[in-house]
Amino acid sequence: MRNVRLDIAYDGTDYAGWQIQKNANSIESELRNAILKNNIELFKLTGSGRTDAGVHANGQTANILINSTIPDDRIKFALNNKLPDAIRVLHSEEVDLNFSARYSALAKYYSYHVNLDKIANPIMRNYSWNFPYSIDKDRLDYITHYLSGRHDFYNFMSTGSKVKTTTREIYFIKPKFNNNDLVINYFGNGFLYNMVRILTGTILEYSAGKLSQDRIDNIFKSKNRKLAGITAPAKGLFLEKVFYNFNEIEDFWQRFLDIPKSFQLK
Amino acid sequence: MRNVRLDIAYDGTDYAGWQIQKNANSIESELRNAILKNNIELFKLTGSGRTDAGVHANGQTANILINSTIPDDRIKFALNNKLPDAIRVLHSEEVDLNFSARYSALAKYYSYHVNLDKIANPIMRNYSWNFPYSIDKDRLDYITHYLSGRHDFYNFMSTGSKVKTTTREIYFIKPKFNNNDLVINYFGNGFLYNMVRILTGTILEYSAGKLSQDRIDNIFKSKNRKLAGITAPAKGLFLEKVFYNFNEIEDFWQRFLDIPKSFQLK
Repeated sequence: MRNVRLDIAYDGTDYAGWQIQKNANSIESELRNAILKNNIELFKLTGSGRTDAGVHANGQTANILINSTIPDDRIKFALNNKLPDAIRVLHSEEVDLNFSARYSALAKYYSYHVNLDKIANPIMRNYSWNFPYSIDKDRLDYITHYLSGRHDFYNFMSTGSKVKTTTREIYFIKPKFNNNDLVINYFGNGFLYNMVRILTGTILEYSAGKLSQDRIDNIFKSKNRKLAGITAPAKGLFLEKVFYNFNEIEDFWQRFLDIPKSFQLK
Repeated sequence: MRNVRLDIAYDGTDYAGWQIQKNANSIESELRNAILKNNIELFKLTGSGRTDAGVHANGQTANILINSTIPDDRIKFALNNKLPDAIRVLHSEEVDLNFSARYSALAKYYSYHVNLDKIANPIMRNYSWNFPYSIDKDRLDYITHYLSGRHDFYNFMSTGSKVKTTTREIYFIKPKFNNNDLVINYFGNGFLYNMVRILTGTILEYSAGKLSQDRIDNIFKSKNRKLAGITAPAKGLFLEKVFYNFNEIEDFWQRFLDIPKSFQLK
C-alpha cells in the first residue's frame, strides 16, 4: 500500500463543495471517480478539510492510500485525464504512510476576493464578491489587526458545527488593493466552519461604516454570534495553501510582505 | 429619437457570440431583450463589431436609437436589471445622432490571455489559452515587432470573410509577462475576422520554435493563408476598448508603456 499526497486546484462554481453528498456533485466524488477509472485500488481518500459549495481552491490537499504501479509523479496526469477541467491535480508525490492531509496540517492560507466597483465585472462574477461601497482604509487597517492573533472565534463560526475548542490563532490578515479589487489574505493555524467568510463580512461591513465600534469591541468578550457581520458569499473564497512543515511556514511568512495577488481581477 | 452609447462587458463563455443567430443565445439578443423588457422603443442597435462565440469583452461598445424618458446615465441600471449577470452595461451616455459604434470607431484594443503552465489552472480555463511550451523571449520580441505596422493581413483572416481591403495598421503588439501568464496586447486601427487569434497563434508557435523563419519571412510576401500559424482559441480573447477620438488614442498610447494587465491569472 502506498500513500500519495495530491495538491489540487478547482473551480468550485458548479460543485456542491468538497465532500461527497447524495444527489450532488462534489470535488471528492470526481476525484474518486478519476481514481476508479484509472483502475487504482483506493483504500482511503482524506482531504485537508471541506470547502463549501462555490468555494475555490488553488492548493487544496488530499492523501490517497492506494495500490497501483503508476509512478507517484505520473498519478497527476492519470487523474487529470479522467477529471473535468474544472478540477486539476497540480502535484502528486508519494509520502510517508502516516501522513494525513487533514491531521498533519499545521497551517492554512486562504484568500478572499472582493471587487468594489459599482457595477460587477462579468468575468469575475463567480470568483469575487461585488461589494460596491467605499472602504475606509484606516478602519480596514484597524479591524484586520484587531481580529488577528489568538482568540476564541466562537462568534465567527456557523451554528451547528461541533469542535472541541473554538480558539484559533490567525498569524495575519493582510488586505491587498489593486485599484478597485481587494484581496484579503488569511494565514492561521486553523479555521472554524465559515470563519473566513464571517471574518470577511465583518471586516468589510466595519470598513464601510456599517458596523458600530461597540459591536466590534465586544466581539471577543461575549458569546453572541449576532455581534459578527454577515457571512461573505462562498464564491470569493479560495483555499490557497495547506502547510505541513515549519520551514515552509517560515518561508511563506517572510515572503508574504511581498506576496503576489493570487489573482488580479477586472 | 435619442442615440445612446453603451459600453458593455461580458463573459462570452456561454454565448454564440455578439451577433443574433437562430437557435442560439447571443449578447446582442440579450441586450435587445433587456431593452424590450424596459419598454424602451428601439429603432436600431449597432455594435462596434462582432465577437465570436467564447470571446469576452471588457469594453465592447454599441449605440441604440431609442424613444424613452429614462435619463441616459440611468439606462445602464435599467438594462442591467434585466440582463443576465454574464453581461453588464458599464456606461450609458447620450451621444450625437450621427454617432455609430461601428462606423465612428477609429481604433480598437484587444488583449489575448495565455497561460504557460504545464497543467492548466481551472479558474482560468474559460479565460485563457493554456500553451504549455517554453517561449523564447528574443523570438517573441522579434515576431511582435515584425507583425506590427501597416501590412496586408490577408493571410491573417479566416476564409469566407468579405472586406474591401485586407490592409490594416497595428500600432503595436505588446506582450506582458506575469510569471507563467502572458497577455498579448493588440492596438490597431481595425482587425479582420479572426485576425487577433491568428496573429496570436502565429506569435506563440514562432516563439516556441514551432514555425520556421522562412515561413515568417514570406508571410507578407505571398497570399497564402497556410503561412500563418494556428488560430488561437476564442476563450483567451478580450475586446478591451474601442476608440472614438484622437485624444483618447494618444492618452492610451502614452500610458501603454505602463499598462496594467487587464487581468492577472492563477
